[in-house]
Amino acid sequence: MFFIKLDNDSNYEYLYREIYEKIKNKILRNKINEGDKLPSKRNLANQLGVSVNTITSAYEQLLVEGYIYTIERSGYFVEEIVELSRPKSSKNQLLPNDLKETVIKDNPNQLSLSHMDTDVDLFPFKEWFKSQQTALKKHQQHLGHITHQQGPLAVRQTLSKMINVTRGVDCEPEQIIISVGTQTLVEQALNVLQIASDEPLTIAVENPGYQRLYGLMEQLNAKINPISVDENGISVDEVKQSNANTVFLTPSHQFPTGAIMPISKRFDLLNWTTKKPNHYIIEDDYDSEFKYQTDNIPSLQSLDFNQKVIYMGSFSKSLLMGFRISYMVLPYPLLRIYRKHYNKLLPYNNVFSLFTLNEFILEGKYLQHIKRMNLVYEKKRNELIKQLTSLFKENITINDVPAGLHFTASFKTNKSYDEVEAAAKKHQLDVHTIRRFTFESPKREPNKEIVLVIGFSSINFDDISKAVRRLNKIMYE
Amino acid sequence: MFFIKLDNDSNYEYLYREIYEKIKNKILRNKINEGDKLPSKRNLANQLGVSVNTITSAYEQLLVEGYIYTIERSGYFVEEIVELSRPKSSKNQLLPNDLKETVIKDNPNQLSLSHMDTDVDLFPFKEWFKSQQTALKKHQQHLGHITHQQGPLAVRQTLSKMINVTRGVDCEPEQIIISVGTQTLVEQALNVLQIASDEPLTIAVENPGYQRLYGLMEQLNAKINPISVDENGISVDEVKQSNANTVFLTPSHQFPTGAIMPISKRFDLLNWTTKKPNHYIIEDDYDSEFKYQTDNIPSLQSLDFNQKVIYMGSFSKSLLMGFRISYMVLPYPLLRIYRKHYNKLLPYNNVFSLFTLNEFILEGKYLQHIKRMNLVYEKKRNELIKQLTSLFKENITINDVPAGLHFTASFKTNKSYDEVEAAAKKHQLDVHTIRRFTFESPKREPNKEIVLVIGFSSINFDDISKAVRRLNKIMYE
Repeated sequence: MFFIKLDNDSNYEYLYREIYEKIKNKILRNKINEGDKLPSKRNLANQLGVSVNTITSAYEQLLVEGYIYTIERSGYFVEEIVELSRPKSSKNQLLPNDLKETVIKDNPNQLSLSHMDTDVDLFPFKEWFKSQQTALKKHQQHLGHITHQQGPLAVRQTLSKMINVTRGVDCEPEQIIISVGTQTLVEQALNVLQIASDEPLTIAVENPGYQRLYGLMEQLNAKINPISVDENGISVDEVKQSNANTVFLTPSHQFPTGAIMPISKRFDLLNWTTKKPNHYIIEDDYDSEFKYQTDNIPSLQSLDFNQKVIYMGSFSKSLLMGFRISYMVLPYPLLRIYRKHYNKLLPYNNVFSLFTLNEFILEGKYLQHIKRMNLVYEKKRNELIKQLTSLFKENITINDVPAGLHFTASFKTNKSYDEVEAAAKKHQLDVHTIRRFTFESPKREPNKEIVLVIGFSSINFDDISKAVRRLNKIMYE
Repeated sequence: MFFIKLDNDSNYEYLYREIYEKIKNKILRNKINEGDKLPSKRNLANQLGVSVNTITSAYEQLLVEGYIYTIERSGYFVEEIVELSRPKSSKNQLLPNDLKETVIKDNPNQLSLSHMDTDVDLFPFKEWFKSQQTALKKHQQHLGHITHQQGPLAVRQTLSKMINVTRGVDCEPEQIIISVGTQTLVEQALNVLQIASDEPLTIAVENPGYQRLYGLMEQLNAKINPISVDENGISVDEVKQSNANTVFLTPSHQFPTGAIMPISKRFDLLNWTTKKPNHYIIEDDYDSEFKYQTDNIPSLQSLDFNQKVIYMGSFSKSLLMGFRISYMVLPYPLLRIYRKHYNKLLPYNNVFSLFTLNEFILEGKYLQHIKRMNLVYEKKRNELIKQLTSLFKENITINDVPAGLHFTASFKTNKSYDEVEAAAKKHQLDVHTIRRFTFESPKREPNKEIVLVIGFSSINFDDISKAVRRLNKIMYE
C-alpha cells in the first residue's frame, strides 16, 4: 500500500492527470528511487479503484516525458533523474518593479494634435471587409503557405502600377519589397548599402527630421551626419561638402518642416549620386498622398535615370497606422545584393492583409478613399489654421505648406520647451514640440519662439476650437 | 505667339496638366531661359482660349515644384535649373534578366508532404471574421495609433494566461514580445544576448535542425556550434563540452527528428545555464500544440527557476502560416536590456489581427480549433503511416513520434539524394529530404538510407494514397 492516494476533492479534470502528477512528484522529491519498479498497471488500478486504461494513460505520459522507463515483460521503472538546481530564494521569480507596465486608460477628454495618429473613424471598414472576402475567394490557398520574401508578386504588380500613376515612380514589381514599417525597410536598406560600399556608411539626414529612425541607423553602426533644412528642404551644398555616401530625405514634404524641395535642387542632388558608385539616396515618401490646392509633387525617384534612389512608401498615413504595410523600391544593383543577402528571410507581412489591400486597390477603393480623405483633411486643416490665426494673431507664425497631415507653427511665448510640454500634458492635448526632431535641443533664448508640429488628421472637426483654446492655455496660462 | 500650343487630341485628363507639362518641358529643354518672364496669366489664357483659372492652376503647380518663381506685381519667371546628368545609354533602365521573376502558376496536380504548409481549408474563417468584428467594436480607436512595441498589453495578458495553461509557461504579460515570425524574434534575442554577454555569442544548435535560422544567426555574427541529436534530442554532454554560451533547441518535438527531450536531460541542461551568467537557452516551441495519444509535454521554460530560458511560440502552425504572429518570453534581465535597446522600435504586427486573435482566444475558439485540428491531423497521420508501411514494408523505417505536423522516415533505395529530389520534382510531390537540415551533406553510402521529412498537415485525406504511390515512384522508378 506504499504508493499514492487519490484526493476526494481533487481539482484535476481527468483522473489520470492526478495519478501522473502524484507519481511525478514522488519521483522529483526522491520518494521513489532510481531503478525502483512501479506497481503493475493492474495492481495500481485495483488499489486505487480505477480502470487499467487510466493507469496506462498516466504511465504513458510519465514515459514520454522521461520520468520512467519500461522493460518489456518486466514492467515500469523510475529513471535516473538529475537534480535541478534551484535558487535558494524565490526572489528572482517576481517581476521587478522597474519592468512593470501600467495599463494606460483611454482618457475621453484627451485631444490629439499629434502628427502620428490617423483618423480611424473615417476608415471604410465595410469596403475593406468586402475586399477581404474577395481576397479570400481568390487567394485562400496562398494563406497557408509562405509567400515570396518580398511579398506576393500579384500585390507587387498592383503596387508598381499604382505608384507609377500616383507618384511617377518608375519600377518593376521585382524591385518592390513589402514590409512592416519604414524601420524594417531602413534596416534592410542600410545592410544592403553597407554591402555595396567598401567604406563605412555615413548618412546625411535632415535636421530637424525623423530622429526615431536616426537612432536606429546609429544602432546599425551607420554614422549620422545632420544637415540643415531651410524652406527648400535639405541643404544640398552641405551634403556635397560632407563625407556622406548616403542621403536620407523627405523631399516632397519635409518632415517636420513641410518644405518641398524644388526641381533644381533635386537635379543637383541626383547629380551628386553619380559622382561615386556608393552614393545613394533614400527617399522617404511618407505622406505624399495628401496635397491640397496643388497636385502631388512627383517623387525624386521619378527623376532618377541612374538607379540611385531607394524609394520608400507606406500605407500608415493613407490607410491605418495599425496595418503596418510599407514598401521600398530598390535600384537594380542593390536588389541583386538584397536577393543574395536575404535569400533565407521569410516575409514579415500578414499575407491576408496584403491580398486584401491588393483587392482594395484594384477595385478603385483605395484612390477613392484617398480622394475623400484629402477633402476631409483639407477642411480640418483650413479650420484649424483659421482658428489658430484668429486666436493667436501676431503671436503665431504658421509655416503653411498645403500638404501632408501636419504643419509647423511658431508661438511667441515666455515659456520654455519644458514648460510647454508639461502644460500640454496638464491640459490633455497630444502635441509635439520641434525639439523631439532636432539634434541639438533648441535653447529657449529671449524672444525665440516655441515651434510645434501640429497634426490635424486625428482630431474631430468639432473638437478643433477646444484644442485651439487648450493650446492657448498651454502657451500663456 | 512664342509660347505653347495645345493638342487637339490630347491625352490629359485636365487642360491645366497639359499646359503645365508643356511649359515644364520647355524649361527642361532650355527652350526658355533662366530669368525669362512667362506670359501673364490673362495673356496666356487669351492666347490659348482657356480660362484664367486653368492657367493659374498650371502656374501654381510649376511654382510649387520649383520650375518658376514669382515677383509680386511683376509676374512669373523661369528658375535657374541645374542640368540633370543622364546616362548616355538607356541600357541600365531595363530590369536585368537575372532579377526577373517568373510567375509560378498553381499546379492542381501538385501534392504536398511538406512540413512547411498548413491546411487552410480547415481554418474557421467565419469564426475568425466574427472575432474580427468584436475586435473592431472593442478596439477601433487603437487601430489608428501605434501600439506598445511589444504588442498591445491586452493581447499579451491573454497570451500569458493561455500559454500558462497549455504549455506551463510561467510569465508576466510584461515579458512577452509579439512579432512577425521566429526570425525577427531570434534576431532581437541575439542582439539582447550579445549585449548581456561580454564574450562573442556562440550558439549550440541542433544538427539536424532549422538551418534557415542558423544562416540568419551567422549573418548576425554569432558563431554556430552544431551539436548532434539522438532519440533523446540534443546531446547535453556535447553542449557542456562546447564553448557555447547559448543553446537554441526544440525540446518538445525536435525539428526535424521529432525527438522528445526527457526530463532528466532537461534538468541537466537547465543546470548548465546556472554555471555562468551569460549562459542562456532559447526554446523554440514551434509546433507543441499538436500531440497525439499522450498529453502535451510541458515546456522547458516551465522548469526554469533561474530566468534562463527564452521561450518562443508561434501561431504559424496552429492558425495560418500567412498571419505571421509569433512571440517570445524574455527572462527579466534580458527584458531590461530589450526595453533599453529597442526603446525606439515601433511594433511590426498588424494590430487588427492581434486584437482579432485576442478575441478568438478569449471566446475559446482558438483551443476549440486546436482540438479539432488535433483530431484531423491524427487521422491523416495514422492513415499516412498505415499506407506507407503497407506499401514500403521492410524498405521503410518510420521514426514514429506521435507529435507535431511531420515525422521522419528512412527509405531503402539505391538512389542518391540528388536523384530523389529530382524525382520528387518530376512526380509533382513537395517533400524535403533530411539534407536540407544538416550541416554536412549526408553522403549516399552503400546501404545507407534516404531520410525524408514528411509533413501531413496540408495534404487532403483522400490524396494520401496518391502521394504514397508517388513516393514509391520517387524512390524506385
